[in-house]
Amino acid sequence: MNHINGIVFDLYGTLYDVHSVARLCDSYHPGRGREISAVWRQKQLEYTWLRSLMGHYADFEQATYDALVFTSGQLKLPLDAAAQLALCNAYLELAPYPEVPAALGRLQAMGLQLAILSNGSPHSIHSVVTQSGLAARFSHLISADEVRIFKPHGSVYQLAEDHMKRDRSELLFVSSNAWDASGARHFGFPVCWINRAGNTFDELGQSPDHVVGGLDQLADWIAAPRNN
Amino acid sequence: MNHINGIVFDLYGTLYDVHSVARLCDSYHPGRGREISAVWRQKQLEYTWLRSLMGHYADFEQATYDALVFTSGQLKLPLDAAAQLALCNAYLELAPYPEVPAALGRLQAMGLQLAILSNGSPHSIHSVVTQSGLAARFSHLISADEVRIFKPHGSVYQLAEDHMKRDRSELLFVSSNAWDASGARHFGFPVCWINRAGNTFDELGQSPDHVVGGLDQLADWIAAPRNN
Repeated sequence: MNHINGIVFDLYGTLYDVHSVARLCDSYHPGRGREISAVWRQKQLEYTWLRSLMGHYADFEQATYDALVFTSGQLKLPLDAAAQLALCNAYLELAPYPEVPAALGRLQAMGLQLAILSNGSPHSIHSVVTQSGLAARFSHLISADEVRIFKPHGSVYQLAEDHMKRDRSELLFVSSNAWDASGARHFGFPVCWINRAGNTFDELGQSPDHVVGGLDQLADWIAAPRNN
Repeated sequence: MNHINGIVFDLYGTLYDVHSVARLCDSYHPGRGREISAVWRQKQLEYTWLRSLMGHYADFEQATYDALVFTSGQLKLPLDAAAQLALCNAYLELAPYPEVPAALGRLQAMGLQLAILSNGSPHSIHSVVTQSGLAARFSHLISADEVRIFKPHGSVYQLAEDHMKRDRSELLFVSSNAWDASGARHFGFPVCWINRAGNTFDELGQSPDHVVGGLDQLADWIAAPRNN
């Protein structure tokens, strides 16, 4: 791996916990919050991939809303318009994983340029980053919406090179989503997979260059002498 | 809807039951067969979509094998090479849904041209159709492999028009997969969704023109006077 001058982070599931909405889901259908959150997230991902493939783009907020409507229907757990709105708004205020704020501070203090490259719309990315008080950590907030197609399409990863004015070989791409790590690796980034939950990496013909259990471990790894 | 001169069928999950492999899965890990089959199928679909979006095509057999390897690892249910081979081969001998053979016979007797348009490779499609004794029902067996990308990309649906030499408006597209029915509808086919399991249709900005509970009901609907 070359010398790394910047880090490109995925947002949903990597820096921020998408299942932090489960508690609110649970308030509408007690005992079913985790299940609602899991199906909702799975469908949200599917809808971004399927709309990209169909050539029928709609932004991330639309996919999030559509996936919630499907989830409510499929699980036969009704949600009225106010509940749908509250749940979709909760996606704008996701909580970061506990180790993330301090680890980002350490990485920034090392002089690394930090960016987010997300399937989220600009509004979603800004909301999440601002609500959590982490906006000052990032030099670039980059949205797939600019090219109207979602990751893992190569034109989204290309945005990181274009905005950061650095070659992909100088940028470490960091994601907890194995499909996203695979897409970034195929595009040509060195990749670190954050595997907090002991999952199996996806079989998409790619392997991550490095695997850690959390962002604190990533900061340790980058701070280690062999990487400087 | 215009006069229909031909029907284009999806294969996996529409004419043939992908979960007919669950019994064999169960022989390797008793009591876990349905779960293995469900995760395997979900990952198989994801891998076709993700590889299509990444621009890193591998054929359907590869996606099927890769998805099985992931499933075995994620569920921590080991499968040796012989078991993996046996399970992947089971995908070449899927069982049709019970009502399918008779319904296809009725539709063919009405003078309709019948085709399969599948993400499966030519080898997979031919194997499944031949093993089940239904090859004579179809005038065309069309594989996404020809364009090296998977449904719901429009270039796959385009193959049906090209091979059958008919405009999309004359061809009814039939699928049990709501994402596939949505992709076909977006492309411009009239679409019938087969909903055997009482599922909710996907929220991808499309609606099927007609919904039935099985292929027998499709034959009834087409035979009804208003459609002739």
